[in-house]
Amino acid sequence: MTPVEGFAPLPDPPYYAVIFTSLRSGEDEGYAAMAEEMDRLAAEQPGYIGVEFVRNQGGQSITVSYWRTQEALQNWKAVAAHTLAQQLGKDRWYRHYTLRVARVERAYSGPEGR
Amino acid sequence: MTPVEGFAPLPDPPYYAVIFTSLRSGEDEGYAAMAEEMDRLAAEQPGYIGVEFVRNQGGQSITVSYWRTQEALQNWKAVAAHTLAQQLGKDRWYRHYTLRVARVERAYSGPEGR
Repeated sequence: MTPVEGFAPLPDPPYYAVIFTSLRSGEDEGYAAMAEEMDRLAAEQPGYIGVEFVRNQGGQSITVSYWRTQEALQNWKAVAAHTLAQQLGKDRWYRHYTLRVARVERAYSGPEGR
Repeated sequence: MTPVEGFAPLPDPPYYAVIFTSLRSGEDEGYAAMAEEMDRLAAEQPGYIGVEFVRNQGGQSITVSYWRTQEALQNWKAVAAHTLAQQLGKDRWYRHYTLRVARVERAYSGPEGR
């Protein structure tokens, strides 16, 4: 099944979700280019499933990336360019963030048959 | 620790996340009142931790609600008023959605010490 635009694919569980909730600092320098580069690089990683991202006008956003295994997301965390992006995020772009790693156990989509 | 506005609390894992990604249909009748009522009702349920919600101008949103146990989220799914809201969501408000239930295994917040 082709995923709907803006939605990540729905493979059979289990797999992993990284839920990143953030509030931007208002400092934008370098952010857009880095975010685009990270999206491109993440999509190249082994075990990458997809990503969902929504931001509102207040600078709050939720990003959920999906990975086939824990190992895949650990490897992504360790990619050098991504490590730099994380550091810049801490230093510059985010006022606050939370990151949660979760194992997806059930999943479905809708509406169907309405 | 008091949670930051817009962020759910960060209890020690494990606990559960319900990741609901949706695209609205453009049909708004009754949606806002129901959403508010569901927020209020969810917060009263045993085992509720908190919720994070971001919507953009295109009608795409990600809602992540957090629950202490699987039982707590199953109970919430079965609450009668919530069942009605789910049905109206299917029939009326959503063009597409995905729902994933995931067990949170690690979590942290930042930036700290910058």
